[in-house]
Amino acid sequence: MAKEITPRSEDYSQWYLDIVRKARMADTSPVRGCMVIKPHGFAIWEKMRDALDAMFKETGHVNAYFPLFIPKSFLSKEAAHVEGFAKECAVVTHYRLKNDPNGGGVIVDPEAKLEEELIVRPTSETIIWDTYKNWIQSYRDLPLLINQWANVVRWEMRTRPFLRTAEFLWQEGHTAHATAEEAMKETRLILDIYARFAEEYMAMPVIKGIKTENERFAGADETFCIESLMQDGRALQAGTSHFLGQNFAKAFDVQFLNKENQLEHVWATSWGVSTRLVGGLIMTHSDDEGLVLPPKLAPVQVVIVPIPKPAPGLMETAEKIAAQLRAKGISVKIDDDEQNRPGFKFAEYEMIGVPVRLGLGQRDIDAGQIEVARRDTREKNSVPLDTAVDHVVQLLDDIQANLFNRAKAFRDAHITPADSWEEFEQVLETKGGFISAHWDGTTETELAIKERTKATIRCIPVDGKAEAGKCVLTGKPSSQRVLFAKAY
Amino acid sequence: MAKEITPRSEDYSQWYLDIVRKARMADTSPVRGCMVIKPHGFAIWEKMRDALDAMFKETGHVNAYFPLFIPKSFLSKEAAHVEGFAKECAVVTHYRLKNDPNGGGVIVDPEAKLEEELIVRPTSETIIWDTYKNWIQSYRDLPLLINQWANVVRWEMRTRPFLRTAEFLWQEGHTAHATAEEAMKETRLILDIYARFAEEYMAMPVIKGIKTENERFAGADETFCIESLMQDGRALQAGTSHFLGQNFAKAFDVQFLNKENQLEHVWATSWGVSTRLVGGLIMTHSDDEGLVLPPKLAPVQVVIVPIPKPAPGLMETAEKIAAQLRAKGISVKIDDDEQNRPGFKFAEYEMIGVPVRLGLGQRDIDAGQIEVARRDTREKNSVPLDTAVDHVVQLLDDIQANLFNRAKAFRDAHITPADSWEEFEQVLETKGGFISAHWDGTTETELAIKERTKATIRCIPVDGKAEAGKCVLTGKPSSQRVLFAKAY
Repeated sequence: MAKEITPRSEDYSQWYLDIVRKARMADTSPVRGCMVIKPHGFAIWEKMRDALDAMFKETGHVNAYFPLFIPKSFLSKEAAHVEGFAKECAVVTHYRLKNDPNGGGVIVDPEAKLEEELIVRPTSETIIWDTYKNWIQSYRDLPLLINQWANVVRWEMRTRPFLRTAEFLWQEGHTAHATAEEAMKETRLILDIYARFAEEYMAMPVIKGIKTENERFAGADETFCIESLMQDGRALQAGTSHFLGQNFAKAFDVQFLNKENQLEHVWATSWGVSTRLVGGLIMTHSDDEGLVLPPKLAPVQVVIVPIPKPAPGLMETAEKIAAQLRAKGISVKIDDDEQNRPGFKFAEYEMIGVPVRLGLGQRDIDAGQIEVARRDTREKNSVPLDTAVDHVVQLLDDIQANLFNRAKAFRDAHITPADSWEEFEQVLETKGGFISAHWDGTTETELAIKERTKATIRCIPVDGKAEAGKCVLTGKPSSQRVLFAKAY
Repeated sequence: MAKEITPRSEDYSQWYLDIVRKARMADTSPVRGCMVIKPHGFAIWEKMRDALDAMFKETGHVNAYFPLFIPKSFLSKEAAHVEGFAKECAVVTHYRLKNDPNGGGVIVDPEAKLEEELIVRPTSETIIWDTYKNWIQSYRDLPLLINQWANVVRWEMRTRPFLRTAEFLWQEGHTAHATAEEAMKETRLILDIYARFAEEYMAMPVIKGIKTENERFAGADETFCIESLMQDGRALQAGTSHFLGQNFAKAFDVQFLNKENQLEHVWATSWGVSTRLVGGLIMTHSDDEGLVLPPKLAPVQVVIVPIPKPAPGLMETAEKIAAQLRAKGISVKIDDDEQNRPGFKFAEYEMIGVPVRLGLGQRDIDAGQIEVARRDTREKNSVPLDTAVDHVVQLLDDIQANLFNRAKAFRDAHITPADSWEEFEQVLETKGGFISAHWDGTTETELAIKERTKATIRCIPVDGKAEAGKCVLTGKPSSQRVLFAKAY
């Protein structure tokens, strides 16, 4: 167990905070609920962003940028949106400061009050649909497939770095289509992209599902989601893709002339993932020694540490290996800092999650070998120098696969069927994880279960099979199991 | 002259707005002073960002992310910063909305008033140096070379898309160093990066210089800048790099233990370029037919238009050429949309600034050739099909070079020496551009000249040679010419 990291078994919540701090992912800030994303944490987010951005672009989406501020009146335009969306928003009321005539620094100039307050965007459907009104006239303007990378603000009361912060970074896609079918196809396409990204890049297995009406996005006709499971048995909603029907088009009066020259309202989707994914990444793979990163998202994939300290012959070999790895597109760091000992460096690179560490001493060179340590299993072994590069390339793939398989085995072992209320409560209290159970389909029952256990319906799995059964609480008939869990 | 674009000769300012609109760069928004950056404009900004980001990273900088909000009291901590910095800021005073009990939509909840107002960052020195205090203890923590890509807000009264908007996108670098020499070296390194980016990517010639005390960034000991010249003879400040001395370190009490184990205040720099560069790009190269883009920043570098409409044989050849160009890293679009005629397409691609257009008809194929049109000179000629790919690769380089040379010739022809006040006024009124003149070095004279002519000192060129002379206004002695201009 690494110094200054609380073991997971002792206090999972503190362990998470320790990892965030010791792996230099984020720092607190003087602004309530806002964090500073430190360079190491930001480099991981950049890799996530770049991979997702490429997937969006491959499927025909383009990026744009809409204003940070939303006129207050816009939020009232879509009835379900205003009713259901959290009202904890940052409100801009003034546009000027002035020097305090009494010498107390700067004060807000009371004469610079806005006529209409501006809301710092909590999400951008309203301002974007107000804009789309001017961009869409005919079916030839459709589909409109736009994404935005942006910061948003929701004034959360209880915050945790990455998982829930007042300001966070995200992407929000907002698309417009001529038909309901096309919009639904887009909603599902994005859901698939999110799932593929989570599994192939983050090595984080996810379940694709549909949210219940109660958990649906305010203003959506249907919300799809990917749900993942953390090591403490709590679920994490990792991304959502909404089929918005014609709700926003009607609220903002966005109509188009179809091929038959008739006016119709446009069909819409919106979808997003955020820096919350970084929290999910940490909690899926990391251990009591620090951060564990899948190679595809590691800012540094391989570190080479000369032992006991850099010497001309050692450095030459280290640089040769580094160059060969870099030629294969692998990011490599050589740590030739003489002020720290190898033991200190080893602990440090374990802490920040570098997937592969190569140790290279004179004795290794004499024996024609190099020491290879993998972060995921913490195994070490020596491999011949002349096959080291191929070995490392293969090892990075193995680590990526191993992390996914390990997380998937854990997740699969934590989907427990429950066929009675007793069983439901027992599984939740002793084992946690997802509970697969029948539910009668009413919001009333859903809320009653939440009230009693804090467990919520995470989703109705899209790949779930039809199965007649009885609601775990009410005994009323049900046609499919849904997944319950306590969630972040 | 393209439809709906006002000629530059008629109204340069309207021409700019027409280009922004017709080339689909940006749109107005319902929020005063904020624009929507449309996909085409954003794609150009993305290319700028990626190129700059790579240059920063190559020189050891890393990205991070700091909060959008700054506690109001922070702005008072650095005396010159608060005194000199514009106070037109968006101020957040409340953190919650609620439903209007009278049914009027949402209203600001008067009970959710912040104890201390938050300012939407106009720039981040204060919150970053408050954070650096916790990150820097010893010389081993230095240098700290951090950059942030972010949105910032300055409540500008008169706005113009890209050039001056209330919210804009930018990067802001904030570095910390152990010595003044190192910080100054960093300030100059970034100035050189900015100049290289402007000239090599934007094809926009710039003059590197030092700002006068009066034009210096609030809180800086020295501000360096790159200045460019637009086609209407007005200057544009395209980027600034500030040597901040120990001012922010002292204001936020950031000290480090040096190698001799003594406490010292840290030395700082900050530097930034913004979406304003997109405005500079437009105004440097574009013409009365629309946008002109340097190939290195064009989202689509080559468009292939089958004439009169796509046919199997044509498309096969078009796709073969496209594949060969793409293999060389060139972005290519084939426009096989049958709903628009070639003439319409030609005008459209000229409007949005695609550097090279290839027209391909059956007659071309029969003759074994293809029509190549370059956007910068609007020249067309036919080249043999079998050398077309190499020709286009070379042509893109030629266009990039031609745009730079053309802009440089214009700029150089518009640096006019003036040795008397009469000459100064006459050049400014008739020819515009930069005026190279002697100045007595006082703010008083600088402001008097500004008052009389609206011309400001753009910079004291860093490559300017020492030359004894007399101030163009006061006749007092001067040791170097400085550059005056009316500026955006």
